Amino acid sequence: MITGKNYIGNQLSAQGNQAGKTYKTFNPQLNIENPLIYTEATKEEIDEAVNLATKAFKVYRNVSGKKKAEFLNSIADEILALDSQLIDIYCSETGLPQGRAMGERGRTVGQLRAFAELLNEGSWVEASIDTAQPDRKPMPKSDIRKMLVPLGPVVVFGASNFPLAYSTAGGDTAAALAAGCPVLVKSHPMHAGTGELVASAIIKAAEKTGMPNGVFSNLNSSGIEVGTQLVSHPGVKAVGFTGSIRAGRALYNLAAKREEPIPVFAEMGSINPVIILPHALKNRGEALAKTYAGSITLGTGQFCTNPGLLLGIKGDALSSFIQNLSDEIVKIEPSCMLHPNIINAYEANKQKALSQADLTVVADFDNQVKSNYARQTITTVEGATFLKNTSLHHEVFGPYSMVVQCENKEQLEQIISKLEGQLTGTLIAEKEEVSDYVQVIEALQDRVGRIIYNGVPTGVEVCPSMVHGGPYPASTDSRFTAVGIHSIKRWVRPFSYQDWPDSLLPDELKNENPLQISRLINNKTSTDSI
Amino acid sequence: MITGKNYIGNQLSAQGNQAGKTYKTFNPQLNIENPLIYTEATKEEIDEAVNLATKAFKVYRNVSGKKKAEFLNSIADEILALDSQLIDIYCSETGLPQGRAMGERGRTVGQLRAFAELLNEGSWVEASIDTAQPDRKPMPKSDIRKMLVPLGPVVVFGASNFPLAYSTAGGDTAAALAAGCPVLVKSHPMHAGTGELVASAIIKAAEKTGMPNGVFSNLNSSGIEVGTQLVSHPGVKAVGFTGSIRAGRALYNLAAKREEPIPVFAEMGSINPVIILPHALKNRGEALAKTYAGSITLGTGQFCTNPGLLLGIKGDALSSFIQNLSDEIVKIEPSCMLHPNIINAYEANKQKALSQADLTVVADFDNQVKSNYARQTITTVEGATFLKNTSLHHEVFGPYSMVVQCENKEQLEQIISKLEGQLTGTLIAEKEEVSDYVQVIEALQDRVGRIIYNGVPTGVEVCPSMVHGGPYPASTDSRFTAVGIHSIKRWVRPFSYQDWPDSLLPDELKNENPLQISRLINNKTSTDSI
Repeated sequence: MITGKNYIGNQLSAQGNQAGKTYKTFNPQLNIENPLIYTEATKEEIDEAVNLATKAFKVYRNVSGKKKAEFLNSIADEILALDSQLIDIYCSETGLPQGRAMGERGRTVGQLRAFAELLNEGSWVEASIDTAQPDRKPMPKSDIRKMLVPLGPVVVFGASNFPLAYSTAGGDTAAALAAGCPVLVKSHPMHAGTGELVASAIIKAAEKTGMPNGVFSNLNSSGIEVGTQLVSHPGVKAVGFTGSIRAGRALYNLAAKREEPIPVFAEMGSINPVIILPHALKNRGEALAKTYAGSITLGTGQFCTNPGLLLGIKGDALSSFIQNLSDEIVKIEPSCMLHPNIINAYEANKQKALSQADLTVVADFDNQVKSNYARQTITTVEGATFLKNTSLHHEVFGPYSMVVQCENKEQLEQIISKLEGQLTGTLIAEKEEVSDYVQVIEALQDRVGRIIYNGVPTGVEVCPSMVHGGPYPASTDSRFTAVGIHSIKRWVRPFSYQDWPDSLLPDELKNENPLQISRLINNKTSTDSI
Repeated sequence: MITGKNYIGNQLSAQGNQAGKTYKTFNPQLNIENPLIYTEATKEEIDEAVNLATKAFKVYRNVSGKKKAEFLNSIADEILALDSQLIDIYCSETGLPQGRAMGERGRTVGQLRAFAELLNEGSWVEASIDTAQPDRKPMPKSDIRKMLVPLGPVVVFGASNFPLAYSTAGGDTAAALAAGCPVLVKSHPMHAGTGELVASAIIKAAEKTGMPNGVFSNLNSSGIEVGTQLVSHPGVKAVGFTGSIRAGRALYNLAAKREEPIPVFAEMGSINPVIILPHALKNRGEALAKTYAGSITLGTGQFCTNPGLLLGIKGDALSSFIQNLSDEIVKIEPSCMLHPNIINAYEANKQKALSQADLTVVADFDNQVKSNYARQTITTVEGATFLKNTSLHHEVFGPYSMVVQCENKEQLEQIISKLEGQLTGTLIAEKEEVSDYVQVIEALQDRVGRIIYNGVPTGVEVCPSMVHGGPYPASTDSRFTAVGIHSIKRWVRPFSYQDWPDSLLPDELKNENPLQISRLINNKTSTDSI
């Protein structure tokens, strides 16, 4: 049952009721508000949640990997047990179809179980042991042992476009809980109900597996105050965020100004450039147009990896491709965006782009559409115009893409090297032409976190080799990924023990290697005991 | 030969001569200026150096690990070839003895060779491969491969207290060059000659091993302008710093305000708390006093890990220890500090501490000392006073330490948990009493990067298990270490290739594994080919 309250640790709480700080979510398909009322967290509730998290950290940091794995698996089980209740509220708060809800749930559960597996195996702590050399000259060498330890309470901001996989129990939360960090979720106002249900699953799992009260809290919010208070709170030690550049940068700035600055990993906007080389354009232009019409409109263009920028070299093949893409994209039925605010921003950003001189609209779905349904749009622009006009380099969040017609290879390289940081870059090419474009490809690599060959950027596989992140503003710190097991590294720090007695060391660093993990021993990897 | 000029890439340059931006270094032993004149880098020279670094990066990022290893080993060789010329200028600019100069040179050369070994072995790139599953339902799985790649040009600020090991070719530079990042050193004004000599060794090595011009530059500076311009420059992608909290935080703030924020790893101040438990105090108080008198005065107290804070529980044993420590420390001959500015700051900070009510001076070397020689000082204070007065929590850089007399275990724990972040924490204990102090020890772990048992914090072993860093303000990002091969992680980011043709992949990710490195293949570690 959804109560509209906050979880302050294990307790439901709604102190904000008296002050009237309440709000509702919105069903974009029906174009009406949903009936349930949510109460924003108060300053006192936030303080209490952080204090509980700080206390919980003292216990939770010492919980074994196996026990934490049980907790994560139990969260996955409890999310599945919510069954149609979760799917229904998800759909009512997002306008997304059931299939998408179930797919995203599968991804969320899969992430939790992948982290559980990582913890059960145990080697992720990067244990490293340098044994003593008491007879070394001129100075004896101490015994030094290192492993990764958790940072402390982490605040997670859920994403509007992934109410499950990048929100309450999404990748940031799963990684932080796996690391040994308590989590405080700033619930996304657009899917407060989905958020509360998932939070209830986490709380249930925490209670069932004996985790300390405060290991998780869920804080409702409709404005910026709750997030601001959380990021400024001295008890908070790191922040995970998925969303717009404006909001992500504001949180980054806030964290950098603290007396004790803390790391903020914000995964933000991206236009995900796609370079289509001439031979590929000539040989497969028609098929590519169809594929890209699908990729641009997938999920109503609401993916971080949506291809918002296609680049080719001017000529008949590119002209035909633009025509084919235009023809294909208007065949696709428009679909619903997440919220009236999102579609309004889409229309406004699109109009802003269209108001630029020398931008040509080549496809615009012009039939009547339902409220909150987005018209897909393709524009085209000359390379020189794009180079001059950096406002065209920014994301239009939605089913929109712009084709840049470059004069030549040199202009293409120049454009790529001038782009802001991106989550992804894609190269569409025939094998024999790649060697002619080495500099273009290297320029692309320098600007992105992931590079794709003859594919589409949409679809972020959850696997150890995935990088979801990239140079700013794709993320605030390109040294980490938001997806995959290695995303745990955002929430941990290395810690050394010098000459520490074996019996007092954590199991990961004990001589006998009771956890049988892989360790670096005197700079050689092994699972041996010492 | 020392010219007093900057290295803008491979070229010596001194445009600032005309504007009269020159300065000299100082010999604190002789208390006179050294004769050589150094010319500060101009804005144009800085721009040119960054532009060269940006161009060099395009080449250097693709240089193989083996070739980069040759470069690093060659730097080590060229530093050794400088022989007595380097040792002499080092001593004349620091007042430190020859033995220290040679020890630090050994450490510097050892670091360079350790990174060369890391590169020759090659597995440090954390290669990870998830192979394709074209038949997977409902969606085929792409082939995704990941490895660490360099960030781009890195600015390194040398430390006043380690002209070799933490400066021009020190740990930050060695790690950045190993990572594949060009380096721009902001030379430390106090040891500009040592800096230029080491820079000449790097340039010679770069030329001998065929590295691109711009892979290294050395920029003279006497004020804050050169550093400010470097950190603000859009071409700079990361910053390494060792020094004071004030300067490190200023650079961090500057980098965070950039249009594209960049990571700053600043290793800053620390008072390195040492907890001495009652049984140890009783059994070994005398020996401990002797050991700690040595550790406090080592290198005239100018180590980042100098023990500035000793904590014990009030009683006869602690009183005796304070007496013994006082007796021992005045037996030690005072020694020279690095520079008049440093000794002036030492005296001023000490006076500021001494002016606090309820602080008792228990030892103060009161014989006449030479100019720039530091008088070692021990003070003591009640636990309650220390708790109330947070100005006592700050570092007094030099041979100074304060003994805090706690009322009981609870007060000790409270004090530890209120401390700022520290590089190190030390526990002096008999084995049987440790279990009574679990909470104290956990509080200490939460505040530090390295914890030491029955030892001294001075002496930072260069080995893979070392953490030299810690919670703010010990460093600006506790997720990294400044010492040891893993310090390379500060300058790299993960990068994914999706469905990339094998022939176009870097060797680290090719099917046949030509480098024979250890890789994560479908989440299992192996050196196998695919």
